[in-house]
Amino acid sequence: MLLTTFAVLLASALAHEYPDCSSEPLSNNSVCDTSLSARERAQALIDAMTIQEKLNLTHNNSPGVPRLGLPTYNWWGEALHGVAAAPAIVMAAAFDDPLIYSIGEVISTEARAFSNANKSGLDYWTPNINPFRDPRWGRGQETPGEDTYVVKRYIENMVTALQGGPEPETYKIIATCKHYTAYDMEFWQGNTRYGYDAKVSAQDMAEYYMQPFQQCARDTKVGSIMCAYNSVNGVPSCANSYTIESVLRGHWNWTADENYITSDCTAIQNIYTDHHAFPDRQQTVAAALNSGVDIDCGYYNPTFLPSAYEQGLFEEATLDRSLLRLYTALVKSGYFNSAESQPWRSLGWSNVSTPESEDLALQIAEEGLVLLKNDGTLPLSLPSEGNLTVLLIGGWFNATSEMQGIYAGPARTLVSPWMALNNMSNINIETIQWYESPLIKANELQPDVIVWIDATHEGAEETADRNTIKWDLMQPDAVESVATTGIPTVVVHMGEQCDDSMFFSNANVSAVLWAGYPGMFGGQAIINTLFGEVAPAGRMPITQYPTNYVNEVAMTDMGLRPDSETGNPGRTYKWYDNATVEFGFGLHYTNFTAEIIAVETTSFDIAQLPHARRPLPLPSRRSSSTSSLEVNVTNTGNTTSDYVALAFVAGEYGPEPRPRKSLVAYQRLKGVESGASQTGALNITLGALARYDVSGNEILYPGSYRIQIDVPVLATWEFELTGAETVLDHWPQS
Amino acid sequence: MLLTTFAVLLASALAHEYPDCSSEPLSNNSVCDTSLSARERAQALIDAMTIQEKLNLTHNNSPGVPRLGLPTYNWWGEALHGVAAAPAIVMAAAFDDPLIYSIGEVISTEARAFSNANKSGLDYWTPNINPFRDPRWGRGQETPGEDTYVVKRYIENMVTALQGGPEPETYKIIATCKHYTAYDMEFWQGNTRYGYDAKVSAQDMAEYYMQPFQQCARDTKVGSIMCAYNSVNGVPSCANSYTIESVLRGHWNWTADENYITSDCTAIQNIYTDHHAFPDRQQTVAAALNSGVDIDCGYYNPTFLPSAYEQGLFEEATLDRSLLRLYTALVKSGYFNSAESQPWRSLGWSNVSTPESEDLALQIAEEGLVLLKNDGTLPLSLPSEGNLTVLLIGGWFNATSEMQGIYAGPARTLVSPWMALNNMSNINIETIQWYESPLIKANELQPDVIVWIDATHEGAEETADRNTIKWDLMQPDAVESVATTGIPTVVVHMGEQCDDSMFFSNANVSAVLWAGYPGMFGGQAIINTLFGEVAPAGRMPITQYPTNYVNEVAMTDMGLRPDSETGNPGRTYKWYDNATVEFGFGLHYTNFTAEIIAVETTSFDIAQLPHARRPLPLPSRRSSSTSSLEVNVTNTGNTTSDYVALAFVAGEYGPEPRPRKSLVAYQRLKGVESGASQTGALNITLGALARYDVSGNEILYPGSYRIQIDVPVLATWEFELTGAETVLDHWPQS
Repeated sequence: MLLTTFAVLLASALAHEYPDCSSEPLSNNSVCDTSLSARERAQALIDAMTIQEKLNLTHNNSPGVPRLGLPTYNWWGEALHGVAAAPAIVMAAAFDDPLIYSIGEVISTEARAFSNANKSGLDYWTPNINPFRDPRWGRGQETPGEDTYVVKRYIENMVTALQGGPEPETYKIIATCKHYTAYDMEFWQGNTRYGYDAKVSAQDMAEYYMQPFQQCARDTKVGSIMCAYNSVNGVPSCANSYTIESVLRGHWNWTADENYITSDCTAIQNIYTDHHAFPDRQQTVAAALNSGVDIDCGYYNPTFLPSAYEQGLFEEATLDRSLLRLYTALVKSGYFNSAESQPWRSLGWSNVSTPESEDLALQIAEEGLVLLKNDGTLPLSLPSEGNLTVLLIGGWFNATSEMQGIYAGPARTLVSPWMALNNMSNINIETIQWYESPLIKANELQPDVIVWIDATHEGAEETADRNTIKWDLMQPDAVESVATTGIPTVVVHMGEQCDDSMFFSNANVSAVLWAGYPGMFGGQAIINTLFGEVAPAGRMPITQYPTNYVNEVAMTDMGLRPDSETGNPGRTYKWYDNATVEFGFGLHYTNFTAEIIAVETTSFDIAQLPHARRPLPLPSRRSSSTSSLEVNVTNTGNTTSDYVALAFVAGEYGPEPRPRKSLVAYQRLKGVESGASQTGALNITLGALARYDVSGNEILYPGSYRIQIDVPVLATWEFELTGAETVLDHWPQS
Repeated sequence: MLLTTFAVLLASALAHEYPDCSSEPLSNNSVCDTSLSARERAQALIDAMTIQEKLNLTHNNSPGVPRLGLPTYNWWGEALHGVAAAPAIVMAAAFDDPLIYSIGEVISTEARAFSNANKSGLDYWTPNINPFRDPRWGRGQETPGEDTYVVKRYIENMVTALQGGPEPETYKIIATCKHYTAYDMEFWQGNTRYGYDAKVSAQDMAEYYMQPFQQCARDTKVGSIMCAYNSVNGVPSCANSYTIESVLRGHWNWTADENYITSDCTAIQNIYTDHHAFPDRQQTVAAALNSGVDIDCGYYNPTFLPSAYEQGLFEEATLDRSLLRLYTALVKSGYFNSAESQPWRSLGWSNVSTPESEDLALQIAEEGLVLLKNDGTLPLSLPSEGNLTVLLIGGWFNATSEMQGIYAGPARTLVSPWMALNNMSNINIETIQWYESPLIKANELQPDVIVWIDATHEGAEETADRNTIKWDLMQPDAVESVATTGIPTVVVHMGEQCDDSMFFSNANVSAVLWAGYPGMFGGQAIINTLFGEVAPAGRMPITQYPTNYVNEVAMTDMGLRPDSETGNPGRTYKWYDNATVEFGFGLHYTNFTAEIIAVETTSFDIAQLPHARRPLPLPSRRSSSTSSLEVNVTNTGNTTSDYVALAFVAGEYGPEPRPRKSLVAYQRLKGVESGASQTGALNITLGALARYDVSGNEILYPGSYRIQIDVPVLATWEFELTGAETVLDHWPQS
């Protein structure tokens, strides 16, 4: 169960050695002087370099400067999954912030162990936080789903844990938020990510595509950001002074000395080859550097920066600016400090794949499963005497590494559903594939229960989007035919998003469990859930769309709102109202009621709201009068279960069209026992209540607001804001 | 170097045992009486069966009838590549009919060795002969290209050799022409082959899509045919009485007792699940059986035929008709005869992967390479002293199994270009990948020659078509940048079709060699060609289209002719006039001249042409007055080389629009020495001169005809046909 995927396409197998500040020549340089500031130390190193040496150092595979004792370094590391080996989409389904934080701690601990073994550096190109805009996206599984509020909570917890705490003095590792910006298409109908120009309105940009990066840069203070392959409104992301300088470094003040930007791999080359933005390669690399990109993952910088410099296409000071960011980042990670002075440098293989971290892998899988249908067949129970015969069908009943999804490292072990079932007592297992005459065999065997476990036929992956979100029809046909036997039939839907409506409408299908990519212990989590060892409480982090949705809107249409001209029916639960399964939906093995604890005030004057004055503090960092809404949740059934309290806001405020609703807070309550109640605290910020105008300004509007608990709604609380609309954040115009 | 790919998806690992006619119970049945006709023997077996037994026998995984001593049998076997392990697209590029025949003999010999070892049956689901209509098709590599004349020559040679000669008394193996019909799309922009309805005009059907099957059924007398997944003009191919009964068994008289039809795998299920052609599964299986499909590759027949029979949806006689075909086929393959009585039953592992058959694998690869550009850099020569330094770049320079393409079996050995180069003396090899700073390294190493070997980035495969035919732009960019060094740079284009125009227009690129999927010895063939051990003489079996072509015509547009309404610019060299590389193009290491040996008569009265009278014999089976056109070819250069004499017809005859030209004959001349001449005999049938009207009738038109030798044209001969237009073949209307 290794932590990281070291992507091998471009990242050569450089050994990572720490620099030796105890010996010459490096010890002669003030970079080793721990009494200086990080910036001063980095500057001293740069001051000692020749221009030729500097020109070689903005490449992911840095050759270092042997003359100075600066070793080679590969800026490229991957750490999406970590120990849990469950892609973010399943982590998000758990709606459990503390668990995300715990997983981030394990990932960074294991990353340090790898670094100490000279297997990796100290910065990692994770997390992938582009919101999952379209169900066809090949990399959606890497992300925490479609909702920006969820994505921002994930960032706050994951990045902070990866980096060793909020604004750490020394970075545990440097996280990299990617891909900046409006990147969420791989290859669709001839449109390639390398040359795609995303046309995005200022409103959609501020309200949706930029929200995760605002969280990363402004609020969570991530160390590093990756610019994307695509252009945005005609300008390549890795040579885009508006998004990089005006928004990121200007408006969000992402200007710590160490804050550096890397390109996605080959993205600088793509500016020339695919975007055709400059007439030659020298102008291309100079434009990327001048616009503030500090690392080229690719070979363009080392190859063409020297001649670009000779041609006067950039100043040495601009190169120095990049190098200062890069080496300050390494200084602030303790790279130049002695091992003895840093606790993280003592981490080793005994800190990798510990029992505790493996428990987390199982826990996140169990928490992330979502029960979509149940006629009472689940949980399965064993007969009082004799064995239960289970017939397993489907391509993924013995899935192992498939459960990990993309960007996973090799796991110590992988437990498929079949393996987990094999470890149970009093079970007879029969298995067939869907094409092996399933109806004949189901009749011959007369199993007690049929469990069909499969993933969508068309695989999404990096570099490939999907063209359909429907199941390969032969497999549901097989399920439908075996279900006619009257034997209880359970469907476990793994892998990508697709339309399960035929299972919901078929009365012969007893239950449907969504499992996505549940990671190394995914099979154990599924069997534990089917047999009631754990009770499912995950919620859908994505909308499940009907099959025809993909014919209604082009993947290249970046618009969120319904558009009668283009036929775009709207995207995400906020703007689309015909979902097969709603975002946030999830059943339990029990029933819950929810009651909002009365709040005396139901009308607020915007002018009187704390901090609602100019100059406004940043809205999402404020407490507010609605920050402590409490909801009382009661388990009225017979099974102990977690419960995710979801709070959405809806109402009449701001101009039309208005979103159907917006998630503003959630909390996962643990182990609510039968008949017992727990109280959830839902922290609702003013920023979460704001909307965005056509210029991208974040605005608090007067009007009537309604907080809704759960999907479908179990409780509501209404309030109003009065007074004048107030701009919380003026969006910088391009 | 094994012959066959036993597809494992649906074909369970049944052991294949021959029936035992020497013992009871089978010896009691007249199927063992070799004095009876094959049909009588098969009928005797069927007469002994109960209806329940019969209902189980139309499944690819036949359970046999244990009570009668009839063993299990799997009708599914694959044998596309055979020993050569080169997909048909490269075989076709050789334009060498006798070599195709030799390869077919080896495949069937090895197939018999497998059958004798109880590893396979006696029938094989090969060849794939749908014409390669669109460059995006994922399975184009399996086929002999876009031109129906080439496809028909391939069928005549391959199928005849597989079956053991023309109309053999005993089949060596039973070949299966697939996929009937108009099947040439996998999955494109949401259109799946399982549910696709190909809309095809009668003209295109008769002129193009049906031509290969006419050759198989009417002329070459293939034993078996596979019906396809798709519908044709609204009717699923595996329940299509027009194509199966009216055309195939009616018009083409494909009615030998053993001529059976199998469905493609799951294709009968798809009639229900994807085409929605019948309201239930019983009516679906009955429709397939009633329309003349004899084997279901899938589970629908064994599962639903019994209840369909109970419902009276088909007659027992119809089932008997199918079984008679199937068991006559096995009788005619010697299945029920003693091993001692049949020479093929003595073949064993010593007949597999022989030195002679491996020589064929190398030969077909060498003959199939096509030289597209050469400024004199090729062939490479070794320096008189010292070593030649070769810098290899590109993803496929060490390709091994990739060279085999799809449907390949495991090879005894695989020789990549790098391996073959390693076996040479006086060569220094340097290798880098395109993303490893190629320009910097090329400058550092100063190689004598740079060879870039790669395949198109987007892979085509079964179940997936492509969306683009352009190279991933980063790789040509790398080639372009290294070529600026002035070091001779050679491009070897492997894999799928794509647009090489940027290499042709770049004066720094010295040479381009097309290698497709050259099979197990493909790397050896490439190196042998680059260094002049052999001289390239292959010709393009497909049009190379410009990048934008795929944006001009939808893959679902089945039309061949340009259409101003839809924007379809035309398909294949016959109707498209803006190719990057023309069908039939190919350079040599020498120069050739060609001269047509004068024919006295240049005007022919259609009424006086031999056999040009009603009732006409079948046109392609006739000799004609133009059957012996001779062309004298002279090698005017310094290198001994093969030469493919291609004869096209063009002219003014029949209604407009007229095809640009049509291939009517070819012959590969071997080893034409410097200064020497050879004479090619080009057999041109009247059928090859015919055209097709809008109803699909094959018509010989009066008008002026021009025979053109080669691409570009080296010689022409003009003649005219006079008199009235004459229908050679009346196409049956649906």
